[in-house]
Amino acid sequence: MEDSTLNNTTKGKAGAKSFLDENFLLKNKTAEILYHEYAKAMPIIDYHCHLPQQQIAEDKNFENLTQIWLYGDHYKWRAMRTNGINERYCTGDATDFEKFEQWAATVPYTLRNPLYHWTHLELQRYFDEYEILNSDSAKRIYDSASEKLRSKEYSVKNILRKMNVAAVCTTDDPADNLSYHQQLKDQKFEIPVLPAFRPDTAMNVSNPTSFIAYVKRIEAASNISIGSYADYTKALKTRHDFFASMGCNVSDHGLEELYAEDYTEAEVSAIFAKVFGGTSLTLLEQNKFRSAMLVLFAEWDHEKGWVQQFHLGALRNNNGRMLKNLGPDTGFDSIGDFSQGRNLSAFLSRLETQDKLTKTILYNLNPADNELFATMIGNFNVGSSTPGKIQWGSGWWFLDQKDGMIKQMNALSNMGLLSRFVGMLTDSRSFLSFPRHEYFRRILCNLFGEEIENGELPNDIAWTGKVIQDICYYNAKNYFGY
Amino acid sequence: MEDSTLNNTTKGKAGAKSFLDENFLLKNKTAEILYHEYAKAMPIIDYHCHLPQQQIAEDKNFENLTQIWLYGDHYKWRAMRTNGINERYCTGDATDFEKFEQWAATVPYTLRNPLYHWTHLELQRYFDEYEILNSDSAKRIYDSASEKLRSKEYSVKNILRKMNVAAVCTTDDPADNLSYHQQLKDQKFEIPVLPAFRPDTAMNVSNPTSFIAYVKRIEAASNISIGSYADYTKALKTRHDFFASMGCNVSDHGLEELYAEDYTEAEVSAIFAKVFGGTSLTLLEQNKFRSAMLVLFAEWDHEKGWVQQFHLGALRNNNGRMLKNLGPDTGFDSIGDFSQGRNLSAFLSRLETQDKLTKTILYNLNPADNELFATMIGNFNVGSSTPGKIQWGSGWWFLDQKDGMIKQMNALSNMGLLSRFVGMLTDSRSFLSFPRHEYFRRILCNLFGEEIENGELPNDIAWTGKVIQDICYYNAKNYFGY
Amino acid sequence: MEDSTLNNTTKGKAGAKSFLDENFLLKNKTAEILYHEYAKAMPIIDYHCHLPQQQIAEDKNFENLTQIWLYGDHYKWRAMRTNGINERYCTGDATDFEKFEQWAATVPYTLRNPLYHWTHLELQRYFDEYEILNSDSAKRIYDSASEKLRSKEYSVKNILRKMNVAAVCTTDDPADNLSYHQQLKDQKFEIPVLPAFRPDTAMNVSNPTSFIAYVKRIEAASNISIGSYADYTKALKTRHDFFASMGCNVSDHGLEELYAEDYTEAEVSAIFAKVFGGTSLTLLEQNKFRSAMLVLFAEWDHEKGWVQQFHLGALRNNNGRMLKNLGPDTGFDSIGDFSQGRNLSAFLSRLETQDKLTKTILYNLNPADNELFATMIGNFNVGSSTPGKIQWGSGWWFLDQKDGMIKQMNALSNMGLLSRFVGMLTDSRSFLSFPRHEYFRRILCNLFGEEIENGELPNDIAWTGKVIQDICYYNAKNYFGY
Repeated sequence: MEDSTLNNTTKGKAGAKSFLDENFLLKNKTAEILYHEYAKAMPIIDYHCHLPQQQIAEDKNFENLTQIWLYGDHYKWRAMRTNGINERYCTGDATDFEKFEQWAATVPYTLRNPLYHWTHLELQRYFDEYEILNSDSAKRIYDSASEKLRSKEYSVKNILRKMNVAAVCTTDDPADNLSYHQQLKDQKFEIPVLPAFRPDTAMNVSNPTSFIAYVKRIEAASNISIGSYADYTKALKTRHDFFASMGCNVSDHGLEELYAEDYTEAEVSAIFAKVFGGTSLTLLEQNKFRSAMLVLFAEWDHEKGWVQQFHLGALRNNNGRMLKNLGPDTGFDSIGDFSQGRNLSAFLSRLETQDKLTKTILYNLNPADNELFATMIGNFNVGSSTPGKIQWGSGWWFLDQKDGMIKQMNALSNMGLLSRFVGMLTDSRSFLSFPRHEYFRRILCNLFGEEIENGELPNDIAWTGKVIQDICYYNAKNYFGY
Repeated sequence: MEDSTLNNTTKGKAGAKSFLDENFLLKNKTAEILYHEYAKAMPIIDYHCHLPQQQIAEDKNFENLTQIWLYGDHYKWRAMRTNGINERYCTGDATDFEKFEQWAATVPYTLRNPLYHWTHLELQRYFDEYEILNSDSAKRIYDSASEKLRSKEYSVKNILRKMNVAAVCTTDDPADNLSYHQQLKDQKFEIPVLPAFRPDTAMNVSNPTSFIAYVKRIEAASNISIGSYADYTKALKTRHDFFASMGCNVSDHGLEELYAEDYTEAEVSAIFAKVFGGTSLTLLEQNKFRSAMLVLFAEWDHEKGWVQQFHLGALRNNNGRMLKNLGPDTGFDSIGDFSQGRNLSAFLSRLETQDKLTKTILYNLNPADNELFATMIGNFNVGSSTPGKIQWGSGWWFLDQKDGMIKQMNALSNMGLLSRFVGMLTDSRSFLSFPRHEYFRRILCNLFGEEIENGELPNDIAWTGKVIQDICYYNAKNYFGY
Repeated sequence: MEDSTLNNTTKGKAGAKSFLDENFLLKNKTAEILYHEYAKAMPIIDYHCHLPQQQIAEDKNFENLTQIWLYGDHYKWRAMRTNGINERYCTGDATDFEKFEQWAATVPYTLRNPLYHWTHLELQRYFDEYEILNSDSAKRIYDSASEKLRSKEYSVKNILRKMNVAAVCTTDDPADNLSYHQQLKDQKFEIPVLPAFRPDTAMNVSNPTSFIAYVKRIEAASNISIGSYADYTKALKTRHDFFASMGCNVSDHGLEELYAEDYTEAEVSAIFAKVFGGTSLTLLEQNKFRSAMLVLFAEWDHEKGWVQQFHLGALRNNNGRMLKNLGPDTGFDSIGDFSQGRNLSAFLSRLETQDKLTKTILYNLNPADNELFATMIGNFNVGSSTPGKIQWGSGWWFLDQKDGMIKQMNALSNMGLLSRFVGMLTDSRSFLSFPRHEYFRRILCNLFGEEIENGELPNDIAWTGKVIQDICYYNAKNYFGY
């Protein structure tokens, strides 16, 4: 895979740019200036991710590259499975190195997939490895990177420092005791690692047994005996308060679509009693319950001035066989085609009309909804001194790649104010994913650079550079109040 | 924001094109030739807009730039609101200059939004202002442009002449007496300013009280006493005839989706009686009524050889609080995700089967429907001597920008005949929006220019230039019969 | 339309590439190398098309260019109709040359439509005609090409040989006796021409009369008396077996959406009895029946190791008048906006859970569903030694053009493995459509070539060339087992 192995007759044009060099994704001089002089040095605010707080609190060292890179990475598993690799090497009992070998053998087949860029960016930025990963280089890269990973320099906290991370928001269930966040506070770790309130399970009443079990968890966590809907919401509220006391100022919701049914308190209380009594609910009852809970959470978020985030549109757990074998979040989710418009509008308008709409970030998974989301946020950016109070989140999950980011930023530019965008987040489970911020920034700088040199924007580098720094860092800093 | 304020170290590449120069958006020599030698001089047929006919009839002079530019421009209000500007400066009681200052301060934050291009195009074309608008330049530009606006040269009629406008279609309710159109006829104003028949309210039966009030307006306008559905349609028909007598040959409909329910005359008569009696209708009843009315209007349009236009897919009035405060059309609408396919097909096929399908333009607001619309029109372009009898309208509202236009023209090219396209319209409430035609034409010329120089089209400038002139002017001229 | 007719003042830039030269669509040197040295020589596996097997078996010679090019080509008819050409010249009784003249007069109006590229590619590759087709060149080109068509060199079999076709799959109803496929076997024609099992009519129970008639056809074809659902499926199964005995290893389904209702055998038997008794079914009954049949077909395909293909999302027969006059498949279909996600997931998961999911290709017609499809396939690529077992098919029908192909390949790249893609098929009724493979290959090579020279991919021509050859030929060869 290396240039040096190519003979002259099969080589492309002499002037071709080298793969992933310092001006990667920067197609002209202006883009280079914007990236190197303005964007590159900005700290990273990773305001939504799935990093395991325990590993940060314990300042874990990983033993090898497989553990930090392949454990839990369903992007890579999906690529390996598509490449015909046996499940044993993804989630099974193969050794760490065997798994790595299969991943390395798959990498050359990922040309044009974001994994190809991410892989080599991460090897460069974390490990100073500039070789292409494939079966030939696998052993050398594995050994070298793994050795580094075992050194103090590569402890999890040192990785966060090395990556210039200014703040991290994890993703946490209301029932969680946040003990590791407490440890991190006690340790006075200089990088804020804050919890986010993610009550998806709290409103999931599709299965009475699971819901009852969850209510018991909230009962235990809150020390409030729960026999009714009023008890339940009271108990949940204490968790919301507790999260706030731990520095949390963000909630997050992962939903197929927003729920915005009409309901009364009496109805919802009856629905709670029914499901808590073990009886299955109709779909309408479920949606009324979810609608009521969403409003409650939104009101609490508004009272405390939190940011609420909604991740909408995933069609999850499509492979029934693998769900049974491996559980959720193992690489069997996809993009859905749910209706989003009316309910988004109804939900946000209900809050706005009662003056209870807090800062909000909406993420869509289906890019066919890009323009709907880009225009929806503009309906509720009013009467606020916070510029960009309602945000349309950066390309999410499957859209978290060059084309996805460009489409999101172009639609946002065309239908809103890109300059007020809070920008990138990793949404990742891995400590090796921070270069996605670099990836995003290069793409961002190139968008401006190309339009400046095309004469579609003024050649005002200072102002454009300021806008870029805002999108990379300051907008998020001000928005989240770090 | 000006180049001269930049020092050398932060400047981009020396060879960068100047912002918005004479070859703006034209990326190669062929595109330049096509634009400057073929497209530029074509007159403008603005076959759908919302210009106030009274202002034309009275040949109004605006007092200042705010009045002509910011009053009623919900695009700008949305940008200002998103930028954190208080509503006072959008629709409130701030002075005209205060509003302008806030807009000027917002402009630098609109980089990459079409407003940034439109703003500076309009300053250049109307006022010979080549400076970037921002807080620094606000006062000077405001004073200079406002002074011009108060001169005779900038009366509304002179603006239309200056912009090389060949015809204008306004948007009018069937109950309107078209008195200003009559004045314009009497004045023998050389630019045709024609009404368009827009009966949205006439078929809106969602609220009995509003509907009854509207029926009374039609009663008054038609001098026909209305007690039944038959009376109502008879009265509306006289309005259609009256509009025709005033030179109207276009109808227009703004709908979430087309209605194509089955219905009988008896059913619809009963539905009319029910709602006219003050009783609320079911959704199905409403849709049957709307379906019947749409067929009637379409039949009348066909009898008279009019063009019917359908603007489909807006999700309106999303912000309940602001709807109450400011009413509709104040910047709180967005793109919806309605189902469009089956009803479009059923509606058009019903007319086609009865040989009552007149010339038709379909506009979609959600670009996710682009290809559906681009292919739908091809099903009904048959048996007509009018090339492109069924048209897919140019990028509308939120799509009325570079990306939106390019996507529309590419989909139309791939799935239909771009050469038969009737092209651009402003859809605007402002006399300063005509440069959107220039914007469209530059984009159009560049599409052809790039493919010619890439070898994807023959280097036949004469033929390509003719096709471009057709799209800019002659197709619309022939289609609308001006 | 030729360059030589242009005078200097209207000519574009001197350096412009010639139209459709040897480096058509290849924008840099690397793309040229990839195409000319790797892609070009690959044989064609046309694994889904609508070529008439009779014409191959009889090794037909067409009399003229109209017969091979315009008969049955609804793409061209749509363009002609949109151009205002009378139906007489599309499907009517005009002479072959009159039809050709009208097509030739339409061609210049198809600039930017894929027909413009296909037309001239086909003239070049089959007939060595490098002139632009228009009214002036019509007669000369018609005469010259028609004369060639009448020669032995242009018999249908020789065309397949000339085009380097390695295998062809036709599209056949289960009731078909495949007599021409048998003839081709008997003739020992060296290019495999295999049937595909397309049972759309077998599951279409929307009209009892048509369904009963179809059951009678299956009765006759299978020699099994059919009085019940069990009989019906038994008879269909013998057809599936028969198709297999004729070399078939592919099924195909053209559906608006996948059906995935729950059902029991008893329910489906009762539904069959009802419709076979002449009673109309409810929509739910129809969908239960279709769901059951789809599972059966899928199970049979899995037993035999066939590939199943699903073409989803067409909204057909939109023009009721023309459907009555001309029947289906005459150019009155369009792209629909059906919900696809949930049913796709349920259907595939049902099979996967029972370990009955065979190799599968999913095609979508609405590009708004691209990302849904691109991610759906990844949920079921697991536990298989076949890389890319579940495929997302190449841009289909209206998407079978440059933009459509690029969007499909970009989404597939971003969300799956482009390297494992089985690539292009013609889906065509015409023997002149094979250059669409060339078109696809040029686009494919250019995607890689541009990213290599941009530094977004390594400059490894040998590996990239191998991946390209896989996509052009070897992946399909291995996947279908030719």
